[in-house]
Amino acid sequence: MTDNTFRYELIHTCSQSGARRGILHTPRGSFETPAFMPVGTQATVKTMTPEEVSSLGAGIILANTYHLWMRPGPEIVAAAGGLHKFMNWPRPILTDSGGFQVFSLSDGREITERGVSFCSHLDGSEHELTPELAIDIQTALGADIIMQLDECADWKESEDYIRSSSRRTLRWLERCLRQHQLNNSSQALFGIVQGGVYEGLRRLSAEQTVSFDLPGYAIGGLSVGEPAELMYRMLDIVLPLLPAHKPRYLMGVGSPDYLIEGSIRGVDMFDCVLPTRLGRNGTVLTSEGYLTVRNATYAEDYTPLDSSCNCYVCAHYTRAYIRHLIKANEILGLRLTTWHNLYFLLNLMRQVREAISNNELLDFRSEFFSRFGYESV
Amino acid sequence: MTDNTFRYELIHTCSQSGARRGILHTPRGSFETPAFMPVGTQATVKTMTPEEVSSLGAGIILANTYHLWMRPGPEIVAAAGGLHKFMNWPRPILTDSGGFQVFSLSDGREITERGVSFCSHLDGSEHELTPELAIDIQTALGADIIMQLDECADWKESEDYIRSSSRRTLRWLERCLRQHQLNNSSQALFGIVQGGVYEGLRRLSAEQTVSFDLPGYAIGGLSVGEPAELMYRMLDIVLPLLPAHKPRYLMGVGSPDYLIEGSIRGVDMFDCVLPTRLGRNGTVLTSEGYLTVRNATYAEDYTPLDSSCNCYVCAHYTRAYIRHLIKANEILGLRLTTWHNLYFLLNLMRQVREAISNNELLDFRSEFFSRFGYESV
Repeated sequence: MTDNTFRYELIHTCSQSGARRGILHTPRGSFETPAFMPVGTQATVKTMTPEEVSSLGAGIILANTYHLWMRPGPEIVAAAGGLHKFMNWPRPILTDSGGFQVFSLSDGREITERGVSFCSHLDGSEHELTPELAIDIQTALGADIIMQLDECADWKESEDYIRSSSRRTLRWLERCLRQHQLNNSSQALFGIVQGGVYEGLRRLSAEQTVSFDLPGYAIGGLSVGEPAELMYRMLDIVLPLLPAHKPRYLMGVGSPDYLIEGSIRGVDMFDCVLPTRLGRNGTVLTSEGYLTVRNATYAEDYTPLDSSCNCYVCAHYTRAYIRHLIKANEILGLRLTTWHNLYFLLNLMRQVREAISNNELLDFRSEFFSRFGYESV
Repeated sequence: MTDNTFRYELIHTCSQSGARRGILHTPRGSFETPAFMPVGTQATVKTMTPEEVSSLGAGIILANTYHLWMRPGPEIVAAAGGLHKFMNWPRPILTDSGGFQVFSLSDGREITERGVSFCSHLDGSEHELTPELAIDIQTALGADIIMQLDECADWKESEDYIRSSSRRTLRWLERCLRQHQLNNSSQALFGIVQGGVYEGLRRLSAEQTVSFDLPGYAIGGLSVGEPAELMYRMLDIVLPLLPAHKPRYLMGVGSPDYLIEGSIRGVDMFDCVLPTRLGRNGTVLTSEGYLTVRNATYAEDYTPLDSSCNCYVCAHYTRAYIRHLIKANEILGLRLTTWHNLYFLLNLMRQVREAISNNELLDFRSEFFSRFGYESV
């Protein structure tokens, strides 16, 4: 019998940075960490086929429970045999709880102890998301990793507000766990550490979340507009409190600097719409920084998006052609920028893992930052 | 030295129908006929990569001179090394003259002996397309097969109008040919038979166009709203007048019945936006007729678009999933319907060629029509 239980395997710790390289084993296959998870909001990584996403090196993707709940509905996905079959992605999937989109997209939301009531961003219909329902929907979707319902509060909220919000998030975790056990599902349920930008609250939330002995832990409420230094400080506080034999997931992080800094601090998993959303807006990631290829300055530029990139797009297309496609509203333009951006981040994570194995992640950071145009830390 | 001259090779004539199977050799490779040419209006077959188009069995594609003239401009394409390099399609390309789009898309157009003046559909700017300019732009784009400037008149125009329009089209052919010789280009220039739905004018146009001894001949002004029977009658008149050793191209034809009926009458090449445009509107071609997969009736239909189809889409996705993608405005939905529709027509042409070789194209037509839901002829 093959080992298909959910398990984090530590491969190497970088002696230079303390970052860790590992493998996360799941019933639907394993993937190397630190890993970037492309976001497939509505059961599709925008513009891409699953085979393309896989060919770029993604071992796991994320789907959004809120969106799939609203459309097509979890019962449609469940009747298809679950999300993996529905969307033709046989590898691991992580679903979020739906909470983040309720807070960021919907109207007229109200938080009570019971849950969050809100109006759908699609048709204004009224709904309530409770911890139990968040688990039930995620059970119906059938992802391999599922998330507790939490509140991702504004980072500028007062310490008092964040304290009571974090406590409620912990009580919601308890209810999620109970519902998860009731559903008798083998999905791995992750808890989420909150606490805003307050060191004491972060510490408390980490310790109390860990006390539930879950298969993995996420860090939420960061990369939501706060200064980078504040985020790094919170990571420095939280990560040492998380058990070394469990995976750690930093939610909503996808810019190159955050991916590298998060990895250095011991994060194993990241997700963000940045590469796909940027791409659809005509901006690409290159080794020398962001490049808005839709700008007129590239109309007659017959060089690749990034001359040092090895992806399919950079091998076959010029900035002039891609700019033409974008200006002409051609879907292939969005496909090519998305493709390149996903490759860029997935390749960055490959380089990060390699640098960990070579005990030189701090050197890699210096070189990458200086070429990309980030200020050195 | 390999044989890379432009040449039509007859392989077999169907004893049952009289249809012909052949190979069109061009300097950029050969393709089997009768052939359907996917349309890459703006230097991209909408939603598809060139490799995908090729993998579906397309041996040649069409691009629209009017669109590329307006955006990005022929000089941008020429500086990229021509259309093939610009769009990463190394195989044969055919460009139209730009005339058809001037007549169908632009505003305020005026036809004189010199050419057509019009306002761009993009920004209203004034332009004039002359026979000479149509050739010059096509020379800059660098397609393997180029078309003369013609007037594709409304099929309801009077016989008098069509007579004088067809005569002008012939005078324009003379000017196109002269410009083509001036440009010293090795592109194959096709003439276009016009004549509306008037038998005498069709005959005259065919004979006079053929007298120019061109490398290939197109039939224009059909499939523009006239009854099918009228189109078939015109084909019955024109095709016997075209030389057997030259390729014949029926412009703007792409519905399954027209492709089969055209092939039976000896047409070698077809083009149409039907498969790509239908797909983007959420309608697909199946062996049992058209299916509008975006309709609510398919929300919980977990069967493929066409159960007897062997394409990638039908192997991996359900109607329910594709409907979800289209309802959710996901680009992958448009990719999958386009992919399937292109496969369907390219596969239909494979079957037509096979039926020609087996001397059973009339039997194939009966079976296809009855299953698809067309009335038998």
